[in-house]
Amino acid sequence: MPTNVYDPPALVPGTLRVTPLGGLGEVGRNMTVFEYEGKLLVVDCGVLFPEEHQPGVDLILPDFEPIKHRLDDIVGVVLTHGHEDHIGAVPYLLKLKRDIPILGSGLTLALTEAKLKEHRVKPYTLTVAEGQREKVGPFDLEFIAVNHSIPDALAVAIRTPAGMVLATGDFKMDQLPLDGRITDLRAFARLGEEGVDLFLVDSTNADVPGFTPTERSIGPVLEQVIGQAPRRVIVASFASHVHRVQQVLDAAAAHGRRVALLGRSMVRNMTIAEELGYLNVPEGVLIDYKKARDLPEDRIVYMSTGSQGEPMAVLSRMANLDHEIEPGPGDTVILASSLIPGNENAVYRVIDGLTKLGATVVHKGNAKVHVSGHAAAGELLYCYNILKPANVLPVHGEYRHLMANARLAQETGIPAERTILGENGTVVDLRDGRAEVVGQLDLGFVYVDGSSVGEITEADLKDRRILGEEGFISVIVVIDAATGAIITGPEIHARGIAEDAGVFESVKPKIAAALAEAARSGTRDSHAMSQVVRRTIGRWVNQTLRRRPMIVPLVIEA
Amino acid sequence: MPTNVYDPPALVPGTLRVTPLGGLGEVGRNMTVFEYEGKLLVVDCGVLFPEEHQPGVDLILPDFEPIKHRLDDIVGVVLTHGHEDHIGAVPYLLKLKRDIPILGSGLTLALTEAKLKEHRVKPYTLTVAEGQREKVGPFDLEFIAVNHSIPDALAVAIRTPAGMVLATGDFKMDQLPLDGRITDLRAFARLGEEGVDLFLVDSTNADVPGFTPTERSIGPVLEQVIGQAPRRVIVASFASHVHRVQQVLDAAAAHGRRVALLGRSMVRNMTIAEELGYLNVPEGVLIDYKKARDLPEDRIVYMSTGSQGEPMAVLSRMANLDHEIEPGPGDTVILASSLIPGNENAVYRVIDGLTKLGATVVHKGNAKVHVSGHAAAGELLYCYNILKPANVLPVHGEYRHLMANARLAQETGIPAERTILGENGTVVDLRDGRAEVVGQLDLGFVYVDGSSVGEITEADLKDRRILGEEGFISVIVVIDAATGAIITGPEIHARGIAEDAGVFESVKPKIAAALAEAARSGTRDSHAMSQVVRRTIGRWVNQTLRRRPMIVPLVIEA
Repeated sequence: MPTNVYDPPALVPGTLRVTPLGGLGEVGRNMTVFEYEGKLLVVDCGVLFPEEHQPGVDLILPDFEPIKHRLDDIVGVVLTHGHEDHIGAVPYLLKLKRDIPILGSGLTLALTEAKLKEHRVKPYTLTVAEGQREKVGPFDLEFIAVNHSIPDALAVAIRTPAGMVLATGDFKMDQLPLDGRITDLRAFARLGEEGVDLFLVDSTNADVPGFTPTERSIGPVLEQVIGQAPRRVIVASFASHVHRVQQVLDAAAAHGRRVALLGRSMVRNMTIAEELGYLNVPEGVLIDYKKARDLPEDRIVYMSTGSQGEPMAVLSRMANLDHEIEPGPGDTVILASSLIPGNENAVYRVIDGLTKLGATVVHKGNAKVHVSGHAAAGELLYCYNILKPANVLPVHGEYRHLMANARLAQETGIPAERTILGENGTVVDLRDGRAEVVGQLDLGFVYVDGSSVGEITEADLKDRRILGEEGFISVIVVIDAATGAIITGPEIHARGIAEDAGVFESVKPKIAAALAEAARSGTRDSHAMSQVVRRTIGRWVNQTLRRRPMIVPLVIEA
Repeated sequence: MPTNVYDPPALVPGTLRVTPLGGLGEVGRNMTVFEYEGKLLVVDCGVLFPEEHQPGVDLILPDFEPIKHRLDDIVGVVLTHGHEDHIGAVPYLLKLKRDIPILGSGLTLALTEAKLKEHRVKPYTLTVAEGQREKVGPFDLEFIAVNHSIPDALAVAIRTPAGMVLATGDFKMDQLPLDGRITDLRAFARLGEEGVDLFLVDSTNADVPGFTPTERSIGPVLEQVIGQAPRRVIVASFASHVHRVQQVLDAAAAHGRRVALLGRSMVRNMTIAEELGYLNVPEGVLIDYKKARDLPEDRIVYMSTGSQGEPMAVLSRMANLDHEIEPGPGDTVILASSLIPGNENAVYRVIDGLTKLGATVVHKGNAKVHVSGHAAAGELLYCYNILKPANVLPVHGEYRHLMANARLAQETGIPAERTILGENGTVVDLRDGRAEVVGQLDLGFVYVDGSSVGEITEADLKDRRILGEEGFISVIVVIDAATGAIITGPEIHARGIAEDAGVFESVKPKIAAALAEAARSGTRDSHAMSQVVRRTIGRWVNQTLRRRPMIVPLVIEA
């Protein structure tokens, strides 16, 4: 994957080495390793969700290769917030070594621990908060409040004798957030005056001009839609978006409706958020799903998962009439969520299904029911100007996002040679206020696929793509090991290709003839015979059916 | 697929029957059949492009079933314009009967004939133009100019003694189109005064508020981007978008650049458009691709295909450095096109690839380089008010689009019971100024897959999806037909699943044991033995690998 792989030099004392293992050139599996004098600090450890060219894959992990044999050197893992793309790979890291200490805010750790519980792992944790400083090995950490689409997100300043690094995690700069917890620009200013040597900054929305609207702007829209809804209301959003759910609860309460949570992750996360005080449930608003059915239809809001059209989530099942709640005329469905690229067709299928059932569907295409969780270009400019970092490494984004972020840095006066466009595995050394690329590791994709981790290869995925597009034809021939004569077959089985009865009959004599010819010329071993079969039927299929299915020749000696 | 299938009654004299075969509940394969006194008129005959749940499929055709045995009754096929989703299935219809007459405008027929030539079919055609009336069997046709994202589009009014139908085809109402050919609202007004009994109207953008901006607004943006480009410019757009290409030619000419066309369909279509006078090439601007390489880099614009991220098209190949033209720093790439849902990831991959190579990428996300070809809600309201149709059948769109269009009709005062929300196969009878749903045919998807048409079934596609997500495991056992004893095997072959060496060794004895047990209890036939193999390895794989691959047991008697 990476261009131009080369090894970094041995790390010399007094130098801080920064190596992102994930999140550069992709949206997901964020993870960065910091090394100083033999000790490693990890910031975030997330998963990436597969795209359509990675069929069947459940999750993609960062490639742990560079730290696999140095697990004892890891002094801690800092988790900036509780989203999957920042915490999802923690169970897989802890399976390599259970006692690596995990640091994070209260909500972040609660969500991480719930996830680890499913993997039957109990971690060592240290809860930290904004303003707090912690010495972890040679790393002097300071945590700074940032605002994001989940509460309790933190940026982390990492001080070593080599210099100070500020890593934002995911953030935006909502100036009127629901919980009043803004990105702490006073702290940014103080760090800027002290001198930020390297700035690792969220790039997700760097190519979006202007400013992300405040989360608060969604409230009145929700209130209006819920207030005017004649029958049931179903709201779908991300299961970790506490403030979005808060606004739904508030709007429901304002209109005398009660709210039932639907979907395993929604119930789990909101229970955690309420227990820890991040979700403020208006008195008597929440109601158990089973009891909600007894309420009049204009007194209920269902808050569910499935806003991305996931086929097994509540909303898709409702749209397919495969759920106890069957939407109908007069019902209102609100998709209070973004549309993640790649999910469009699935989401539109859900919208169409619900519309066809008679429901009114409100979504970001026709109402202001979603704002992003990431800083847009205008906000990033504020950060650059208040921090004036010596060096910048844009992180968290596809290449076009990293590039857009680097350009913003340069517009505020940071020299081009001090803005680093990296990839996963780019090794950056910081010393004397200068950050320099000193190596490029060769990192891959680690696929979680059923119970297997890291066993599925690119070749397996290519096989799946061929099988999925073209199907396969297997040809079984049992031959006499001594003479090469056919005992049984050829039998032909095909799946996933157009096969009218008898389509393969005409090729069987050709295969038999080719095998007889091969036997006559002395071929005996089953591998060579297999190749004869493959060539014969492969050519026939390409010409006759104009397809290129996978050919699986099985020549068995008896 | 359709809900509530039921047969329509026999058609009584004096009634016009309207049956859409495609384009309702989907964007593509538009086709509607009109029947009057035993004769059939077809309007449009297009293809649909497959989605991700239809892997490997090349094209999807309308289901010709209702007209297959009535080909002699077809008096003509009217093509409203030259896009694939309106003309693409014509070759497949003409393969059923070669001499069905085709009617359309000059450009529409030229593009259709070029397509038919690839299928080695020479059609009977009649070129028609706006203002023209033609009697085709019992149908009295009048053609009306409409504006769309391809020149020479026509709406068609169909008069029969049962009433008058107006079918818009695809259209919008650009009031300042490049060619001055506006949607003819004077004709609409005249038809409205005469009395439109049934209005078949394009729904594609019915859920988009307001008005589609004029195509002309893109020109200045193209001019500015091309004018400021330091090196080469590469523009990608749809290969049939003559006016978009026109604006690129004009902008190039204004800045002293020459234009080379790239991509087979782009070259073919623009050659046709120029020959017929729809494309006005400024003197000396077009240059052959091979000669273009000798020009200075700031004197050239490449006009190419591939704006939807199609992997084999020119632009994707450039982004992968798999094309003679290798984009680099200073080059500018303009994607002057929409982003069709489902193509997002592919397009973003191309944008990232080009950005990484150093090119500046301009697209509709960051500049106004595209406008839609379809009427938005505001334009549709004009149509309803000027036509005041007695009955409305929204066509061309997903269900949410049809629904939005029906609501617009109702807002202008058309009663809800006179706006028909149909599906493919909905049979609508028009008589005495009333349109009524009288039946629902059971129509399917007809898949073109390599050389096969209509042979791939939903079961085949399900097999492909399983194979593509999970791979397969085949188990071959050769048994003695008389005793059921194993002669050879079990041999296990797997593709597309994680298999470290020897993972299957542990299950082989289980399979052998299960077969021996079956043989002992008297099982002999290979089908029953296959089921034993399938159950044994299936259970083992689900438990051990936590996957559900396709299991292909092959028990061979020798």
